[in-house]
Amino acid sequence: MKNYKITLQYDGTRYLGWEHQPGKDNTIQGKVETLLGRMLDRPEGDVPKVIGAGRTDAGVHAAAMVCNVHMETAMTPEEIMTYMNTYLPDDIGVTDVREASERFHSRYNAVGKTYRYTCWYGACKPVFDRRYIYVLDSQPDLDAMRKAAAHLIGTHDFKSFCGNPKMKKSTVRRVDSIEIEQKGERITFTYHGSGFLQYMVRILTGTLLEVGFGKREADSIPALIAAENRTLAGYTVPPKGLCMMRVDY
Amino acid sequence: MKNYKITLQYDGTRYLGWEHQPGKDNTIQGKVETLLGRMLDRPEGDVPKVIGAGRTDAGVHAAAMVCNVHMETAMTPEEIMTYMNTYLPDDIGVTDVREASERFHSRYNAVGKTYRYTCWYGACKPVFDRRYIYVLDSQPDLDAMRKAAAHLIGTHDFKSFCGNPKMKKSTVRRVDSIEIEQKGERITFTYHGSGFLQYMVRILTGTLLEVGFGKREADSIPALIAAENRTLAGYTVPPKGLCMMRVDY
Repeated sequence: MKNYKITLQYDGTRYLGWEHQPGKDNTIQGKVETLLGRMLDRPEGDVPKVIGAGRTDAGVHAAAMVCNVHMETAMTPEEIMTYMNTYLPDDIGVTDVREASERFHSRYNAVGKTYRYTCWYGACKPVFDRRYIYVLDSQPDLDAMRKAAAHLIGTHDFKSFCGNPKMKKSTVRRVDSIEIEQKGERITFTYHGSGFLQYMVRILTGTLLEVGFGKREADSIPALIAAENRTLAGYTVPPKGLCMMRVDY
Repeated sequence: MKNYKITLQYDGTRYLGWEHQPGKDNTIQGKVETLLGRMLDRPEGDVPKVIGAGRTDAGVHAAAMVCNVHMETAMTPEEIMTYMNTYLPDDIGVTDVREASERFHSRYNAVGKTYRYTCWYGACKPVFDRRYIYVLDSQPDLDAMRKAAAHLIGTHDFKSFCGNPKMKKSTVRRVDSIEIEQKGERITFTYHGSGFLQYMVRILTGTLLEVGFGKREADSIPALIAAENRTLAGYTVPPKGLCMMRVDY
């Protein structure tokens, strides 16, 4: 069986997220698996398993989610891509399909991930990109947020920023960089790291925004990390502003 | 009474177009008039009349539609803009409000208009901007389309490109420029002129695309203009790709 590496982009607005949920058919993974099953002419209960590099939450978008799937087909990668782009809903697109080595695993082999969170503050509002942007009520202090972000860089136990209270596995992650930029009315937070816990990027962004709005001190971050207590961190910003940008191998 | 010049942007996807339609409440003009009536605390049947620089059709977008409205209010232009952005639906935004001279009329005083039509051709599809882009099945010949477009420049009777068969007024218009550009998978047609007839930009684009796909000759355009016969021109491309970009005064 061949192993295909597939790169997807999607507007997550109307989906329950990447991962399969029992009894629900509106997940990205579900849409892709169902379509590939149809492409391969397989019976309904026997669709190929699509492994994603990460599990984006409900309402979160992706510019480049990588997944892989083992399947047997005479179609070329180009033909698979055309088929998928033709029959997937118009809010899910395929940007690349290629054969990978037999042992390639989109999640286990990922060495880095980039996520971007986009906010907006201005006199008008983002009419055309409104599904991808979180609108703020006032202008946050970028310098204060950058100062706070510097404390997050490195390998830490990010338990304070983990949205899953039942998390049994390690909550240690490595954050390589957090870039906070403003272009016009658009404020972006770009996170690169080894991987991120559930809701972690959204909780980090909510915490940084609280610093930006003077609700907490930039220098309070080290103690917050040390506390390993989710209730002490900031709020979880809404999913619409979040987009998975890249997976490194 | 003061006369306010208001600049709007909107995603026209779910609207019947700019202009009021009897018994229908989902027009841009209707939404704006109803909101201003509420802002001015006027009774329901007595809303202020909002005059638009043009009448965008159902499904057509605007990056900068200009309108004007005569009304009496103690609010500053900034306060009017904030009120409107707060209470208009999230697919209609206000980018500017200012007091204009008493005699300013957004339609009669307009000396030029810019419209842009956006297409896409590529292996993937435009997931995030899918509401604003018309997807083509193949790559059109840009040079042939530019050659055809050159024949359209100038003052002509554009009856062949008018979507309203009952048009009683003059169908003479001046087209100053048509720029056809491709950036990556995005192909844009930017039209600037004195004004455009109903569906004119969409019929011009459909005709140019037919040239781009080898279905008609670039040099057939002068005879097509001279024929003054809508049935001889190209098809009307879908509204989603069209956006009103600018009004000049």
